[in-house]
Amino acid sequence: MVRQVPQGLAVSIGDPAGIGPELIARLWTLRREEAVPVFACVGSASLLQDAAARVGFDLPVARIAAMEQAAGAFDDALPVIDVGDAPYRPGQPDAEGAALGLASLSRAAALAVSGEAGALVTAPIAKAELAKVGFTHPGQTEFVAEACGTAPEDAVMMLAGPSLRVVPVTVHVPLARVPHLLNADLIHRRTAIAARALARDFGISAPRIAVTGLNPHAGEAGRMGGEDSAIIAPAVERLRADGFDVRGPLPADTMFHAAARATYDLAVCMYHDQALIPLKALDFDQGVNVTLGLPIIRTSPDHGTAFDIAGTGRAHVGPMLAALRMAGDCAARRRGDLA
Amino acid sequence: MVRQVPQGLAVSIGDPAGIGPELIARLWTLRREEAVPVFACVGSASLLQDAAARVGFDLPVARIAAMEQAAGAFDDALPVIDVGDAPYRPGQPDAEGAALGLASLSRAAALAVSGEAGALVTAPIAKAELAKVGFTHPGQTEFVAEACGTAPEDAVMMLAGPSLRVVPVTVHVPLARVPHLLNADLIHRRTAIAARALARDFGISAPRIAVTGLNPHAGEAGRMGGEDSAIIAPAVERLRADGFDVRGPLPADTMFHAAARATYDLAVCMYHDQALIPLKALDFDQGVNVTLGLPIIRTSPDHGTAFDIAGTGRAHVGPMLAALRMAGDCAARRRGDLA
Repeated sequence: MVRQVPQGLAVSIGDPAGIGPELIARLWTLRREEAVPVFACVGSASLLQDAAARVGFDLPVARIAAMEQAAGAFDDALPVIDVGDAPYRPGQPDAEGAALGLASLSRAAALAVSGEAGALVTAPIAKAELAKVGFTHPGQTEFVAEACGTAPEDAVMMLAGPSLRVVPVTVHVPLARVPHLLNADLIHRRTAIAARALARDFGISAPRIAVTGLNPHAGEAGRMGGEDSAIIAPAVERLRADGFDVRGPLPADTMFHAAARATYDLAVCMYHDQALIPLKALDFDQGVNVTLGLPIIRTSPDHGTAFDIAGTGRAHVGPMLAALRMAGDCAARRRGDLA
Repeated sequence: MVRQVPQGLAVSIGDPAGIGPELIARLWTLRREEAVPVFACVGSASLLQDAAARVGFDLPVARIAAMEQAAGAFDDALPVIDVGDAPYRPGQPDAEGAALGLASLSRAAALAVSGEAGALVTAPIAKAELAKVGFTHPGQTEFVAEACGTAPEDAVMMLAGPSLRVVPVTVHVPLARVPHLLNADLIHRRTAIAARALARDFGISAPRIAVTGLNPHAGEAGRMGGEDSAIIAPAVERLRADGFDVRGPLPADTMFHAAARATYDLAVCMYHDQALIPLKALDFDQGVNVTLGLPIIRTSPDHGTAFDIAGTGRAHVGPMLAALRMAGDCAARRRGDLA
């Protein structure tokens, strides 16, 4: 049961040439049947209306000046905090749209940091486009971390679906660099941040955590690589000494079938595909990207701008809906409204 | 519909301290209800009877001298070609048992190579135990390749389950070595071998093959690693020029959900966990290890000796049953009895 977040969720519009605007508009139409938590879109009311019209419906909007007005408006119209405007050109990203996306992200993050919004949900951006308008961060997560005053290395990405939660210790780096980037401090730090966040925001008071090995069969006692025993095992030992319920390094290939998944709440993985392959194999279109370790709650759908289908109405609303619901649940838990 | 293989399948006993003997005995009892293809165990009749007794039943055996006698005996008793003996000591591997396992593997492989057996199915061995009795190969696959006169690099491991078939281009090596071991020739060669085997033995005349990238998002045009464009893409181009239906490199994380899997017959992956994580997440306990590129058909269950549960009757018969059925189907296709 999703409860409403009194102050509402701030949703950034993403790159307006992507599928963000139409998804946000469609989510508002689903507010009753899908129990969507109250949210406001930070962006452009007229662009959202154009996006809705393109996929076949009239979108009532309520231009609001402050998040506190969102709840009162939400029943009858999509609350929007205007931060600029740009023509709606689906599939054709340009500097004007990127500037709107950046203004939206910046304001939405500020609303969450100030506590005016209960959480931040970000629609997808295109990094290459944003870079053209002065965005210097590797991605939205680092931008949001900076807005929160959190060191980027302490912003931990978790992907969560109905079947599985995963944290990749390293993320968007070449595979060849992974063995060099891993160290016990990094694994310890990210796992501890994740464990505390699961307790605080996900209602899992003593999360059970399984840590993968890096090598096949977790190295088979050093016969297939030394990192499992030299780097991962000591990190696990330290985490256990700190009181966390952590096991590993475990052979990654046998960690993701149903019986294995039932033994833990979170899988900490060493690299991108080791985490994302099982998550997407099992929970495709339902995965939510959650940034742990921030003072605010931040989620996003686990997909990109999808310029190729923007404006066609073919984009699935599921991931963005899941991101909104998870943000709403986490915000309710922080307030003590949800166990 | 599994058809019988007239000459029968040769099944090696594996390490007799593992779960092999009890699984083989139980499979024979399931011959009617599970339509198990005719097989003979190459090993020790008395040890198999001891293993059956330990898990609670009397096993009738028929000691045979040649595979051609298997079909006539199979209804009433488990056909066994004795190649030695050893006491049954579940969970306690020793040199005597390892020697029996090695003799069994050697003879069973020879029966398949000579054509006396329709296929070879190998029960799990423990490499460390076999090494003590003079086994110098990295694993059973390399041993079987040598028995076939096939270069070990041309023996290609495929894991096949109901949801997915995968070929890892590199297998039991440290992850850090994978980027150095990959080259276009290797990817081309293994993929071509797999494609021809799918056509010959699996009834897939023009197999659709998807090739993973090595790096996150298949390298994102070189922004996260160069191997995808420098090594994998040229291999895919050459395969296409050779007339194979091959796509890639594709982002591995989005290759394994149901809609993506429906677009290909085989996923060629760059390393162990990239292939085995999705296979075991989706088809745990149903994966069959098939060696492609040999003149013979060879399958094995995708599990180990499980010394810890040997003799308890807790081992699942599913993977070994799947290995027998797949071997029987492939043998029938080679004879033209099955489309």
